[in-house]
Amino acid sequence: MSVEAQTEHKEKAYALLKADAERIRKLIEVQMDNLTLPQCPLYEEVLDTQMFGLSREIDFAIRLNLIDEETGKQILSELERKLSAFHEAAIGSK
Amino acid sequence: MSVEAQTEHKEKAYALLKADAERIRKLIEVQMDNLTLPQCPLYEEVLDTQMFGLSREIDFAIRLNLIDEETGKQILSELERKLSAFHEAAIGSK
Repeated sequence: MSVEAQTEHKEKAYALLKADAERIRKLIEVQMDNLTLPQCPLYEEVLDTQMFGLSREIDFAIRLNLIDEETGKQILSELERKLSAFHEAAIGSK
Repeated sequence: MSVEAQTEHKEKAYALLKADAERIRKLIEVQMDNLTLPQCPLYEEVLDTQMFGLSREIDFAIRLNLIDEETGKQILSELERKLSAFHEAAIGSK
């Protein structure tokens, strides 16, 4: 496979994963805004399910050599960091 | 991207998804073999989680033009068919 074709495909895969991470961040933050209690079990379940789905996509992309493992870990940890910061703020303001 | 490079990548993506579907089939069937009650909630939860993970991978592959939507649907429905057949047999034999 030509190098530039590979790069093109890798960039698209990376952009898709970042967009999915951003979609999950927004989904969870909207949920938290509407929750009286941020510890609500449903919120945790939605979060776990979405994070599991994203981790399956990332694992799939890694196995297809579309992203490397380190990049995959970064996408997940960045999303986790943003969500826990938002969660702290949400608890602080309740 | 050269046609043969695209085909190579698509075949690899398809093979990965089929292998993941097979891995889930085996995981669920082993669970069912060890269950006294096939309706056990944990079994349903594991099944739902695994199917959700596979559907996220398939959706990701479709968006990357690695497989088409019809192929994605086939992989999921074939796995669902196998699992429900096994589930019927498991209930029948309890």
